[in-house]
Amino acid sequence: MGEDRLRLSLEESHHLLHVFRAKEGTPFEATDGRGGFFGCVLEAVERRAAVGRIVERRPGSGELPRPMELVVGLPEWRAAEQIVEHAVPLGATSIDFVVCERSGRDALGPQRIARLMRVARAALKQSRRSRLPELTSSERLTKAIGDLRPGDRYLADPDGNPLTPGAAKQGQAPIQPAVGPPGGFSQEERRFFLDREFIPISMGPSRLTTETACLALLSLVRNPL
Amino acid sequence: MGEDRLRLSLEESHHLLHVFRAKEGTPFEATDGRGGFFGCVLEAVERRAAVGRIVERRPGSGELPRPMELVVGLPEWRAAEQIVEHAVPLGATSIDFVVCERSGRDALGPQRIARLMRVARAALKQSRRSRLPELTSSERLTKAIGDLRPGDRYLADPDGNPLTPGAAKQGQAPIQPAVGPPGGFSQEERRFFLDREFIPISMGPSRLTTETACLALLSLVRNPL
Repeated sequence: MGEDRLRLSLEESHHLLHVFRAKEGTPFEATDGRGGFFGCVLEAVERRAAVGRIVERRPGSGELPRPMELVVGLPEWRAAEQIVEHAVPLGATSIDFVVCERSGRDALGPQRIARLMRVARAALKQSRRSRLPELTSSERLTKAIGDLRPGDRYLADPDGNPLTPGAAKQGQAPIQPAVGPPGGFSQEERRFFLDREFIPISMGPSRLTTETACLALLSLVRNPL
Repeated sequence: MGEDRLRLSLEESHHLLHVFRAKEGTPFEATDGRGGFFGCVLEAVERRAAVGRIVERRPGSGELPRPMELVVGLPEWRAAEQIVEHAVPLGATSIDFVVCERSGRDALGPQRIARLMRVARAALKQSRRSRLPELTSSERLTKAIGDLRPGDRYLADPDGNPLTPGAAKQGQAPIQPAVGPPGGFSQEERRFFLDREFIPISMGPSRLTTETACLALLSLVRNPL
């Protein structure tokens, strides 16, 4: 494609042409998932692929100014799907479903990750973000946390305090929220987080599921951005 | 029942006896949904109903210090279910699914409300709250807002600012977050909210679904409580 044209995937073309019923001249939006976001006009259909003329570029559309790297204790499948469905619109740039002591299941395999990526792509489009998040499922918490780059770290924790305004440092460092699996992190795991500068944040007087806690913590830490 | 005994409903009894497999002497927790929260020990089974001896009372368990009254533009059914599933653990004391200009559907009837109440009861139990929220579906936005008692009012709004700390007044007044239906509130509806002292709050650079926006706004406004 030339620099002012783009070609949609067959799946996206099908949606645009047959669900959304676009005709030649219909405006639509597209993203490459790497920060490119394009206002387009449908120009042609070539072998069932929609070709658009780019009329506007909005790089980084819908993205927060800082990365948000969510670490979550691996829950059951439906909860994992819900986390991706809501965390992507809320701006997560990566989600690691980490096997914890109380996860009681193996890390997600490639097929499961591929299914979650489909959920993420749909959520990206719906929320008009432009960078597809990275989804992983680490086997070991110590390695997952050890591999994180420096950042502002928050742990959803029954013994924490409410998030205080101004707790987040300025700058471009990633924000790294962490939420336990169903049943919570073990005492040893919790200690591990606190030793690595995760600030314990209370999620209130009620008991939240892993998925609700993820969304609540993401909502809090992204607010000042 | 005497003052130190309680009898579970048949549905709850079935869960306790056959799913959780409680035996005589097994401890369990129960709430009356009106602020009563009881630590119990299973004492007997009478006509398939579990009877517990109350060993501890924790009135108001899991409840925030202030009511949270959510007003949300009526979305499609699955979104409504998800809102109840997450908003109850987050502390909503009432949820009104209000028909708006862009809702494109009628108010929820009694059967739908009853189904949502079942979701709410399960969420109440799971989150260890003790007051069952009120669920309604108003036909008209102007009446729904007009009927609200005085409170701290917040509107999820693309043209708002991030929630600033200290925006919430002190006191016991309810907190009243409002979120639009899919497609958002109309300009006229938005004006109506602003005229009634709703503070517009930005939910960030991405576009959130009605359900994600509800959870994000609830998470923000409950944090200082």
